[in-house]
Amino acid sequence: IPLSRTVRCSCIKFDDRPVKPRALEKLEIIPASQSCPRVEIIVTMKKTEEKRCLNPESKAIKNLLKAVSQKRAKRAS
Amino acid sequence: IPLSRTVRCSCIKFDDRPVKPRALEKLEIIPASQSCPRVEIIVTMKKTEEKRCLNPESKAIKNLLKAVSQKRAKRAS
Repeated sequence: IPLSRTVRCSCIKFDDRPVKPRALEKLEIIPASQSCPRVEIIVTMKKTEEKRCLNPESKAIKNLLKAVSQKRAKRAS
Repeated sequence: IPLSRTVRCSCIKFDDRPVKPRALEKLEIIPASQSCPRVEIIVTMKKTEEKRCLNPESKAIKNLLKAVSQKRAKRAS
Protein backbone atom coordinates (compact mmCIF):
# COMPACT_ATOMS: atom_id res chain seq x y z
CA ILE A 1 0.00 0.00 0.00
CA PRO A 2 1.70 3.20 -1.08
CA LEU A 3 1.37 5.99 1.41
CA SER A 4 0.32 9.43 0.38
CA ARG A 5 2.73 12.27 0.94
CA THR A 6 0.52 13.81 3.52
CA VAL A 7 0.75 10.79 5.78
CA ARG A 8 3.41 11.13 8.42
CA CYS A 9 4.45 7.70 9.45
CA SER A 10 7.82 7.31 11.11
CA CYS A 11 8.58 4.02 9.44
CA ILE A 12 9.15 3.68 5.73
CA LYS A 13 10.01 0.03 5.76
CA PHE A 14 10.47 -2.73 8.27
CA ASP A 15 13.66 -4.24 9.49
CA ASP A 16 13.28 -7.99 9.54
CA ARG A 17 16.44 -8.82 11.39
CA PRO A 18 15.67 -10.63 14.63
CA VAL A 19 15.97 -8.53 17.77
CA LYS A 20 17.08 -9.93 21.09
CA PRO A 21 15.16 -8.51 24.04
CA ARG A 22 18.43 -7.91 25.89
CA ALA A 23 19.82 -5.79 23.10
CA LEU A 24 16.99 -3.30 23.44
CA GLU A 25 17.35 0.06 25.05
CA LYS A 26 13.75 0.97 24.43
CA LEU A 27 10.71 -0.14 22.50
CA GLU A 28 8.15 2.41 21.33
CA ILE A 29 4.65 1.67 20.18
CA ILE A 30 2.90 4.43 18.32
CA PRO A 31 -0.77 3.57 17.82
CA ALA A 32 -2.51 4.16 14.52
CA SER A 33 -3.75 7.72 14.27
CA GLN A 34 -4.78 10.35 11.82
CA SER A 35 -1.17 11.09 11.02
CA CYS A 36 -0.31 7.46 10.32
CA PRO A 37 -2.94 4.81 9.63
CA ARG A 38 -0.97 1.94 11.06
CA VAL A 39 0.60 1.13 14.37
CA GLU A 40 4.35 1.62 14.40
CA ILE A 41 6.85 -0.22 16.52
CA ILE A 42 10.27 1.33 16.85
CA VAL A 43 13.09 -0.15 18.86
CA THR A 44 16.26 1.57 19.94
CA MET A 45 19.28 -0.70 20.19
CA LYS A 46 21.41 -0.50 23.31
CA LYS A 47 24.94 -0.21 22.03
CA THR A 48 24.48 1.70 18.84
CA GLU A 49 21.39 3.75 19.71
CA GLU A 50 20.28 2.71 16.24
CA LYS A 51 16.53 2.81 15.67
CA ARG A 52 14.72 0.10 13.81
CA CYS A 53 11.15 -0.19 12.65
CA LEU A 54 9.64 -3.57 13.26
CA ASN A 55 6.68 -5.17 11.61
CA PRO A 56 3.79 -5.06 14.10
CA GLU A 57 2.14 -7.95 12.33
CA SER A 58 5.02 -10.35 12.75
CA LYS A 59 4.92 -13.14 15.29
CA ALA A 60 8.40 -12.23 16.40
CA ILE A 61 7.06 -8.90 17.64
CA LYS A 62 4.42 -10.49 19.77
CA ASN A 63 7.03 -12.62 21.43
CA LEU A 64 9.36 -9.67 21.79
CA LEU A 65 6.65 -7.58 23.42
CA LYS A 66 5.93 -10.35 25.83
CA ALA A 67 9.59 -10.90 26.62
CA VAL A 68 10.37 -7.24 27.08
CA SER A 69 7.39 -6.36 29.18
CA GLN A 70 7.69 -9.30 31.49
CA LYS A 71 11.41 -9.46 31.87
CA ARG A 72 12.80 -8.44 35.21
CA ALA A 73 16.34 -8.54 36.42
CA LYS A 74 16.91 -11.79 38.27
CA ARG A 75 18.52 -10.04 41.18
CA ALA A 76 15.46 -7.90 41.75
CA SER A 77 13.11 -10.73 42.57
CA ILE B 1 11.02 -1.81 47.70
CA PRO B 2 12.98 1.39 48.17
CA LEU B 3 15.37 2.16 45.36
CA SER B 4 18.92 3.11 46.01
CA ARG B 5 20.00 6.55 44.91
CA THR B 6 22.32 5.13 42.31
CA VAL B 7 19.50 3.44 40.44
CA ARG B 8 18.19 5.48 37.58
CA CYS B 9 14.68 4.43 36.94
CA SER B 10 12.42 6.82 35.10
CA CYS B 11 9.37 5.95 37.14
CA ILE B 12 9.05 6.75 40.81
CA LYS B 13 5.54 5.52 41.20
CA PHE B 14 2.77 4.13 39.06
CA ASP B 15 -0.29 5.85 37.80
CA ASP B 16 -3.24 3.56 38.29
CA ARG B 17 -5.80 5.55 36.34
CA PRO B 18 -7.12 3.51 33.43
CA VAL B 19 -5.74 4.46 30.03
CA LYS B 20 -7.74 4.20 26.83
CA PRO B 21 -5.75 2.96 23.89
CA ARG B 22 -7.14 5.78 21.76
CA ALA B 23 -5.90 8.44 24.12
CA LEU B 24 -2.31 7.32 23.67
CA GLU B 25 0.20 9.18 21.63
CA LYS B 26 2.95 6.71 22.35
CA LEU B 27 3.80 3.83 24.63
CA GLU B 28 7.38 3.17 25.64
CA ILE B 29 8.73 -0.01 27.13
CA ILE B 30 12.12 0.21 28.73
CA PRO B 31 13.42 -3.24 29.59
CA ALA B 32 15.08 -3.97 32.91
CA SER B 33 18.75 -3.09 32.75
CA GLN B 34 21.71 -2.25 34.92
CA SER B 35 20.43 1.27 35.35
CA CYS B 36 16.98 0.17 36.45
CA PRO B 37 16.23 -3.35 37.68
CA ARG B 38 12.63 -3.37 36.51
CA VAL B 39 10.87 -2.94 33.23
CA GLU B 40 9.27 0.48 32.86
CA ILE B 41 6.22 1.34 30.83
CA ILE B 42 5.67 4.98 30.06
CA VAL B 43 2.77 6.30 28.06
CA THR B 44 2.43 9.74 26.54
CA MET B 45 -1.12 11.04 26.37
CA LYS B 46 -2.31 12.53 23.11
CA LYS B 47 -3.89 15.81 24.11
CA THR B 48 -1.80 16.85 27.05
CA GLU B 49 1.52 15.21 26.12
CA GLU B 50 1.49 14.18 29.76
CA LYS B 51 3.65 11.17 30.58
CA ARG B 52 2.46 8.45 32.90
CA CYS B 53 4.23 5.47 34.35
CA LEU B 54 2.16 2.33 34.29
CA ASN B 55 2.53 -0.78 36.36
CA PRO B 56 3.99 -3.47 34.10
CA GLU B 57 2.56 -6.16 36.33
CA SER B 58 -1.02 -5.04 36.03
CA LYS B 59 -3.49 -6.94 33.89
CA ALA B 60 -4.67 -3.68 32.41
CA ILE B 61 -1.25 -3.21 30.85
CA LYS B 62 -1.32 -6.54 29.16
CA ASN B 63 -4.64 -5.68 27.59
CA LEU B 64 -3.44 -2.22 26.68
CA LEU B 65 -0.35 -3.61 24.99
CA LYS B 66 -2.45 -5.99 23.02
CA ALA B 67 -4.93 -3.31 22.04
CA VAL B 68 -2.31 -0.77 21.06
CA SER B 69 -0.12 -3.09 19.07
CA GLN B 70 -2.92 -4.66 17.14
CA LYS B 71 -5.10 -1.67 16.54
CA ARG B 72 -5.22 -0.35 13.02
CA ALA B 73 -7.28 2.47 11.64
CA LYS B 74 -10.51 1.06 10.27
CA ARG B 75 -10.20 2.99 7.06
CA ALA B 76 -6.82 1.47 6.37
CA SER B 77 -8.05 -2.08 6.00
